[in-house]
Amino acid sequence: MATKFASRRNIDFLINEVFDVASLNRFPYFQDHDKDTFKMIIDTAMKISEELMFPYFKEMDENPPYWERGKVRVHKAMVPFLEEMGQGGWIQAEKPYDVGGQQIPLTIKEICYFLFGAANYSMHVYPMLTAGAANLIYEFGNQEMKDMYLEKMYAGKWQGTMALTEPDVGSSLGDIATTAEPTGEGYYKIKGKKIFISAANSDVVENVIHLMLARVKDAPAGVPGISLFLVPEYRINENGELEYNDVACDGIEHKLGYRGSPICELTMGGNNDCRGWLVGQEGKGIAHMFQMMNEERINVGIGAISKISGAYYAALEYAEQRKQGRKPDVKDPTSPMVELIEHADIKRMLLFQKAIMEGSLALAVQVSIYQDLMSVGENVEKNQMLVDFLIPILKTYPSEMGILATSAAIQIHGGYGYCGDFPVEQYYRDIRIDPIHEGTTGIQAQDLLGRKVTMSKGKAFELYVKEVEETIAAAKACPELGKQILELEKAVQLMKDVTSELLAKKETISREAFLADSVLYLDFMSLIAVAWQWIKLMHTAINAMKGEVSDQDKAFYQGKVYAGRYFFDYELTKIYSLAIRLRSDDKVTVEMTREYFAY
Amino acid sequence: MATKFASRRNIDFLINEVFDVASLNRFPYFQDHDKDTFKMIIDTAMKISEELMFPYFKEMDENPPYWERGKVRVHKAMVPFLEEMGQGGWIQAEKPYDVGGQQIPLTIKEICYFLFGAANYSMHVYPMLTAGAANLIYEFGNQEMKDMYLEKMYAGKWQGTMALTEPDVGSSLGDIATTAEPTGEGYYKIKGKKIFISAANSDVVENVIHLMLARVKDAPAGVPGISLFLVPEYRINENGELEYNDVACDGIEHKLGYRGSPICELTMGGNNDCRGWLVGQEGKGIAHMFQMMNEERINVGIGAISKISGAYYAALEYAEQRKQGRKPDVKDPTSPMVELIEHADIKRMLLFQKAIMEGSLALAVQVSIYQDLMSVGENVEKNQMLVDFLIPILKTYPSEMGILATSAAIQIHGGYGYCGDFPVEQYYRDIRIDPIHEGTTGIQAQDLLGRKVTMSKGKAFELYVKEVEETIAAAKACPELGKQILELEKAVQLMKDVTSELLAKKETISREAFLADSVLYLDFMSLIAVAWQWIKLMHTAINAMKGEVSDQDKAFYQGKVYAGRYFFDYELTKIYSLAIRLRSDDKVTVEMTREYFAY
Repeated sequence: MATKFASRRNIDFLINEVFDVASLNRFPYFQDHDKDTFKMIIDTAMKISEELMFPYFKEMDENPPYWERGKVRVHKAMVPFLEEMGQGGWIQAEKPYDVGGQQIPLTIKEICYFLFGAANYSMHVYPMLTAGAANLIYEFGNQEMKDMYLEKMYAGKWQGTMALTEPDVGSSLGDIATTAEPTGEGYYKIKGKKIFISAANSDVVENVIHLMLARVKDAPAGVPGISLFLVPEYRINENGELEYNDVACDGIEHKLGYRGSPICELTMGGNNDCRGWLVGQEGKGIAHMFQMMNEERINVGIGAISKISGAYYAALEYAEQRKQGRKPDVKDPTSPMVELIEHADIKRMLLFQKAIMEGSLALAVQVSIYQDLMSVGENVEKNQMLVDFLIPILKTYPSEMGILATSAAIQIHGGYGYCGDFPVEQYYRDIRIDPIHEGTTGIQAQDLLGRKVTMSKGKAFELYVKEVEETIAAAKACPELGKQILELEKAVQLMKDVTSELLAKKETISREAFLADSVLYLDFMSLIAVAWQWIKLMHTAINAMKGEVSDQDKAFYQGKVYAGRYFFDYELTKIYSLAIRLRSDDKVTVEMTREYFAY
Repeated sequence: MATKFASRRNIDFLINEVFDVASLNRFPYFQDHDKDTFKMIIDTAMKISEELMFPYFKEMDENPPYWERGKVRVHKAMVPFLEEMGQGGWIQAEKPYDVGGQQIPLTIKEICYFLFGAANYSMHVYPMLTAGAANLIYEFGNQEMKDMYLEKMYAGKWQGTMALTEPDVGSSLGDIATTAEPTGEGYYKIKGKKIFISAANSDVVENVIHLMLARVKDAPAGVPGISLFLVPEYRINENGELEYNDVACDGIEHKLGYRGSPICELTMGGNNDCRGWLVGQEGKGIAHMFQMMNEERINVGIGAISKISGAYYAALEYAEQRKQGRKPDVKDPTSPMVELIEHADIKRMLLFQKAIMEGSLALAVQVSIYQDLMSVGENVEKNQMLVDFLIPILKTYPSEMGILATSAAIQIHGGYGYCGDFPVEQYYRDIRIDPIHEGTTGIQAQDLLGRKVTMSKGKAFELYVKEVEETIAAAKACPELGKQILELEKAVQLMKDVTSELLAKKETISREAFLADSVLYLDFMSLIAVAWQWIKLMHTAINAMKGEVSDQDKAFYQGKVYAGRYFFDYELTKIYSLAIRLRSDDKVTVEMTREYFAY
């Protein structure tokens, strides 16, 4: 079994050397923080990951939650973990002091969440969802609601969920059928069914607070008719006691992976006694929910990076230890075998994982910093646009590439990788949910091409290009990056050209045809975004080596330079094939009919 | 649960319309066969698949074999299936009448094996391996051996295996440590351990015949010291009775997928009483084994295509039934929802699966026909070279692309695809073994670039190019294919250029550097090989539509044309990105060191 799931050194590199997150303390909100407090926080997160989470990685997979008479029994390791999450203030760490927060940058929280996800994503999901649900209450709930729910949620005693999906409604949220009938008594009667709701029932919390989309009776069809409700499993009665709120868990799903966390089927109002409280404005449910969804989309992206990290370090450890064969130029069969890591093809697969993982993690930090700046009122419009623009990329790229990255980790293990004694097959199973939940890859892609690229007359796209160009301009001081800078400049030009060609075509073709290849466009854009981050990483590493550094640090920085070289040569080049198709006028996927698929 | 795992119509199209397999009856060996006998055989295979195999697809996954006091207990559905395999003559169907064969073309047998694999690959592996092991005895064994073993193996009563892998020896077979000590009594004493041996022990056969690689005591190191042995679980004593041969099964592995078939750990000679009989010549073990390995590599490739087929039809069925959302140009939220298959992005994912699967299956038929021609003495050298050249492609392309194809089948199902109630997550798990067993992707790639491309001074490569060019020349009669023909011509030119550039560089760089990107080269070559097949498929379909055809057939042929268009636009274009890297001089994967990966 592997012993390492993430690199602490890499985190320090990112937050101190590449991004200087501590400089955020120029803003009063973050003034109490500096490198030292960050170090303490991350040290603690690492300790939690190592002691309370990673030891249960396989065990929770092998002993998944089970449903018993309406209750979901989950692994007992959840108890000390949730206690620690609550006591340590991990759920609301970025919130103001006055609600029990620690006013840390979201960036630091996300880094900690990255560690939690790498150590045991299934465990991590519980507090992660509670944080998202609590944020919705914090943002849109009334004071009474906040007083009633937030403390218990922050304490890890009450679980939060986002309850969107229904049996007949996956991606098309406007079709939600769960109903909410006003009663005139401050609450609504909720009736309906939800499926695939993560952590929606468990025996390790006292209550579950569902942030749920439903349609108020007689509201208009589609998205404008959807509102957001707080629907607790147990409501608080006049005496302040918990009283069952008619939210029944009918069962849980047997899943490919991500097994430590139950995904539940819920029936609300089976006995006509389920109450929900409106959160925010009626008819604004989807808009409100999007706050949580955006947060969870970032979390899914970071969770995918986590799993790639876990699989990568397992593969690296195996490749360093396992001897197999000789180098191709060695012909003597009596010469000693070498470790796998000596083989170029194994190094290629390791570099692939490393480049995807570290490039994506840098992008996650980048997005988190935009969020932190936004949260303190710095260039709000600009930073919001950059966040919105990059979310589909950050959610999808590690999720989709993670399939191949964890697959490479299996491949390095050979037959052993296919077997349960090693952790990589689990990462491979666990990560497969990520291109599906919190908005499928198709939905993210339509969001990017159909909405984000054109929003505010293309302003977000322009701002993004400017960010990339600033990075390029700064990196020009570094002659060692000549080749990669040229490549990125070429890529940015191609991105501008392809995007404006697509937008020009948009005027002459159906929206269906315009969006038909949006997944390819998302791929194309993601490669360029991650290449942008790799210039930053390489630039920082090369500069660092110009000073005096230890041998160990030098090796670390060289690893960055090599992984960057790998990314540019093996990954970024994929944009040229994608561009060929993006520029093609053959509307084969639109014109294909169901009859032609027949038999 | 899906009801369909393969298209019978597509098989008829391939064997009758595209390849005219019946024309093989111009050779005396196949003279008793025609379209009608093929139809009967394939009808029977379909019936077996539907009745004896597919019903147990999920059930065998959920109730995998288990090990109990040295014996492996497998699912009881294996009993009637193996009986049918034996009685129906499926194991030796292509062999001469005089050994109980039916002298059918291997092509037809492979088509049947494709159906078996799609219905339930784990079941299919048992007789598939017996066939391979029996072939080795048939080819290299002495008459006594043949008399002693073949009948029982062909009857499905004795299982065959290929026993290569050892705890410390995966891909580097020259390091095999199992020993064989001559006794002067016609047999050798075998001592050693093997792991990951499929179907190596089970309670549904009377005996298991291992075709095993071992090193004769004092033989030279490396490949020249390896010999091939027949090592039965039970040997036949002087009285013709079965007597335990000291081949112990120490356990089986818990695997990601492919769970219906046990992979076993074996100890030979734990009581110093394991006997093995030399098959073929001493020191020629690897060469002999390669006959079986080549056969099994083709079978793995076809097995991967099978799984893609099963997952594809499951996804197609789901997409035809499940309603979700509306087309992008429809804004009215009260308009009815449409089936998933109406969405362009879903059709894109279906076309992806269809194009990979049908193109690969055509390539499998192509290779099988070369084998059939070879087997009757027709252009033996040429056909052998084409088979040898194409094996790494046929083994690897569907195995690696199958990860993404079955992943697309999951994606189409959304959250349901991640759950055990639908079959796609199983196909996704099952197929992940294919890039590993019978030679990993890395091994196949080194075989192609390091051996096949240069063998006989590049003769195989030349012959292959000629085959592709003949297809192009024939397709020029079809103006509808103008665009695709141009694309394939461009691709062939690029293939020639890149290959000769690589071979020129080979002289100036280390073998390690030359082979470092062989996996990318294999990708590159595979895309062109499958595009070649797509020209054949499209050409045949377009021609067929020029005659009078039913509406149903027209839709079928249109499906071919659209899938071909998809392949050229979305898949073949990937060669341009691969070529950029293949032409790069940045030896990043060679120069990367283990230290740079450190922490």
